[in-house]
Amino acid sequence: MAKSPSPRGRLSKKHYEQALPSLRDELIQLQVQLKDAPTKIILIVAGVDGAGRGDVINSLGEWLDPRGVEAFSIRTPTEEERERPLMWRFWRHLPARGRIGIFASSWYTETLREEATSKKEKAQLDHELRVIRHFEKLLSDDGTLIIKVWLHISKEAQSLRLRSLESDPNTAWRVTEDDWRAHRHYDRLADTARIIVKETDRPGAPWSILDASDPRARNLAVGELLVKRFQSHIARIQRRHAKSPRPSIRPRSLDPSGLRRLLALPLDQKLSEEDYEEKREKWLGRLHRSLRALQAERRSVIFVFEGWDAAGKGGAIRRLTSAIDVRDYRVVPVAKPTDEEKVHHYLWRFWRHVPRDGYITIFDRSWYGRVLVERLEGFARPEEWKRAFTELNDFEEQLTDHGTIVIKFWMHISKEEQLRRFRAREKTAYKLHKINSEDWRNRRKWEAYQVAIGDMLALTDTPFAPWQVIPSNNKRYARLQILKTSCKIIEEALED
Amino acid sequence: MAKSPSPRGRLSKKHYEQALPSLRDELIQLQVQLKDAPTKIILIVAGVDGAGRGDVINSLGEWLDPRGVEAFSIRTPTEEERERPLMWRFWRHLPARGRIGIFASSWYTETLREEATSKKEKAQLDHELRVIRHFEKLLSDDGTLIIKVWLHISKEAQSLRLRSLESDPNTAWRVTEDDWRAHRHYDRLADTARIIVKETDRPGAPWSILDASDPRARNLAVGELLVKRFQSHIARIQRRHAKSPRPSIRPRSLDPSGLRRLLALPLDQKLSEEDYEEKREKWLGRLHRSLRALQAERRSVIFVFEGWDAAGKGGAIRRLTSAIDVRDYRVVPVAKPTDEEKVHHYLWRFWRHVPRDGYITIFDRSWYGRVLVERLEGFARPEEWKRAFTELNDFEEQLTDHGTIVIKFWMHISKEEQLRRFRAREKTAYKLHKINSEDWRNRRKWEAYQVAIGDMLALTDTPFAPWQVIPSNNKRYARLQILKTSCKIIEEALED
Repeated sequence: MAKSPSPRGRLSKKHYEQALPSLRDELIQLQVQLKDAPTKIILIVAGVDGAGRGDVINSLGEWLDPRGVEAFSIRTPTEEERERPLMWRFWRHLPARGRIGIFASSWYTETLREEATSKKEKAQLDHELRVIRHFEKLLSDDGTLIIKVWLHISKEAQSLRLRSLESDPNTAWRVTEDDWRAHRHYDRLADTARIIVKETDRPGAPWSILDASDPRARNLAVGELLVKRFQSHIARIQRRHAKSPRPSIRPRSLDPSGLRRLLALPLDQKLSEEDYEEKREKWLGRLHRSLRALQAERRSVIFVFEGWDAAGKGGAIRRLTSAIDVRDYRVVPVAKPTDEEKVHHYLWRFWRHVPRDGYITIFDRSWYGRVLVERLEGFARPEEWKRAFTELNDFEEQLTDHGTIVIKFWMHISKEEQLRRFRAREKTAYKLHKINSEDWRNRRKWEAYQVAIGDMLALTDTPFAPWQVIPSNNKRYARLQILKTSCKIIEEALED
Repeated sequence: MAKSPSPRGRLSKKHYEQALPSLRDELIQLQVQLKDAPTKIILIVAGVDGAGRGDVINSLGEWLDPRGVEAFSIRTPTEEERERPLMWRFWRHLPARGRIGIFASSWYTETLREEATSKKEKAQLDHELRVIRHFEKLLSDDGTLIIKVWLHISKEAQSLRLRSLESDPNTAWRVTEDDWRAHRHYDRLADTARIIVKETDRPGAPWSILDASDPRARNLAVGELLVKRFQSHIARIQRRHAKSPRPSIRPRSLDPSGLRRLLALPLDQKLSEEDYEEKREKWLGRLHRSLRALQAERRSVIFVFEGWDAAGKGGAIRRLTSAIDVRDYRVVPVAKPTDEEKVHHYLWRFWRHVPRDGYITIFDRSWYGRVLVERLEGFARPEEWKRAFTELNDFEEQLTDHGTIVIKFWMHISKEEQLRRFRAREKTAYKLHKINSEDWRNRRKWEAYQVAIGDMLALTDTPFAPWQVIPSNNKRYARLQILKTSCKIIEEALED
């Protein structure tokens, strides 16, 4: 729980300057250690206007090595940010491993507003706080050190501070009409602040409330807090033995309903070439029209293609895109993460490709790698991939909350059909690049994959982003199904 | 030289469908080969409205593997784009190695406008064409395959096409008032187009003018052009033996005036602690004020810090940033490129950090690595680093043309002073991370580096971004010089 601020009283300039050198030394040395660790660090400096957030951050900017620090003051969202889900603009500013991100305003800034009196406003506040809790949990579960400071001053101290800023011509510009407005509503803001702090004070992301009435004591307190949190974080890293998990060769299902669904799927549909071509044209036209209507509403679509190796993802994507203006979509092939992606949370690489309003992104493989290949190859620890089911659902909920339509396909083929296709690929010169030893290795783990796929289908089949399981032994049938399904989902969304 | 379009006449559907399969086969196979090569490919599809740019691009989208293709239709620049130099929005969309970027609109779109009759307009057009020529040369020198297609139709064919689009309810939305306006001004647009094509038809980035009056013949012609250009590019790659250049141990100076300037620099200034502190406060305040004034004008600043190892770049940056609100600047430490950066042009990693209007970016080492470490270690071939002097000047000119102030420091110390500092670092526990075997290795190449630094100072000392050579044997003196110099440059810019 957050403690109440313990007033520190005034600190003389002399005492301040005596305390500073050793504090700065300690901070720099800890920063070097943390860079080698390496860890991601987020520091949020929040509080009412006039509490000195800017001052605190500028002092830290001087105390820390600026080459490892990035400070953000996220103000009005830019147009590119407004056209994406709420948290996109924070994701794009998250610090990489080994770096410190300091947020002067943050995901709390817009939540801290005057009143939440009506039922609707309270519900909205609750929703925002839930989103924040999920976000911070996601990051802290991933090893990010989150330090949240709430600078507290009394209403009287706030008024004094604003007046003192106004009286100095060098700082007068900092005081705006909004600040005085915030001052007049101090009590109501304080009520919201109490709720925010209470509801988002969680293990892994606790609040530290500091008395900010005296600037020097305040700065020192923040510095000392950082030293304490840095030290305990380093101790925790050292305690944690980096046991790398063993790959699961015989995974146990978490929810067998998905596996049952998979095994019950009829796979041997027929569709003549002629029949296919006729129907394809019809559905392509219909899909084209509905996508255009969607674009007119400035809504975006995310397609997720998952499936066995050789299930026909590439071909299906090619047929789908022939219905879309090439300037409106982007195909994102998901392979190994780049090294810029590796120093971030595993979802960061997908957030960066979230489309703007009115555009379409097609993921050829996706975030589901977390609960498939990463689970089975031991790239993710059991607690990590188990946690992922919730994280993935939450991610997709954020997308659909924004109005994005998420369409997920699992292209399913039989083990025999895969073998046939592998052999065919090996025989055709210009298809040879499509098959390698890894494909054969994965094939040997068919049964293990089946369990993981089943869990995925059971645990991430949500009302807002349900799975479409596509029987794909027959390529023509699968492609047509994908066109039809996409079309129907989009037409339904248009009716909302 | 660009050839005039040779009319192909009409192509029957039957002939088209006969020709298509082998063309598509060839394209896909070449795409696979180019992906393995790997090379960057830019395809620009330009032409007047109604010539079918969209159709052509959609056909290519179907013919090529969409996983390796990105299509861009760059329309109105976004706010984030407008707040940066003109070419930033194209840099951010350049394809990575192994990928094809198709541009429906491109750096030509805004240049193709109705009339350049007045002297001023002609000068502006000339300027834009020069920027485009430089940009394309830069990319093609770097191995990018640039294919530029100009789709030509007559005024009559344009009118027919617009009317036919309007008569179909599925396509009527595509015809806007702007299209008809463009049609009425066909002849004047054609004049500008002729100038554009003539002035930007260069080896490495030639125009291909294709008759677009018959859609099927046009699509086939584009496909065939791609096959031809892909094939010759692959042949060229295979011919080019990847000789890796040898490091220059005893480099010869290209322009000894820079080396002379360096050797003549007095290095042993004195500055007492007291004197320093007093003056520092004065200049920090003045710098703070002028930066604020600059920000009010929404102008941005780029600081470049270069210097010998242990010259004091980090300390100088820390002092400089104490004058700036931490939310307004970003320090970009330049080390080895990440793998996302490696698959792009060497300047791409710097373009991505160009600040928005009103912000400050501080580069701790910079693009000058190209003519220093890359020259001496043989990471760049002689023709590459020799070309770089012009490329770097051009880059900085684009920044300053946009209104950005570029301040470049070379922090200079003597060889003896460096030795003293290296030894001191080895003695202090928390400075140990600042020195490694590479520093000692670089030190052994002092004389060679001196020549390269001299060339850099001589060949990239431009009126718009001159070098500030800072004697840095005395740290206090150097830091103060940097504050003073920065201040004066910014104050001067404010007077403009």
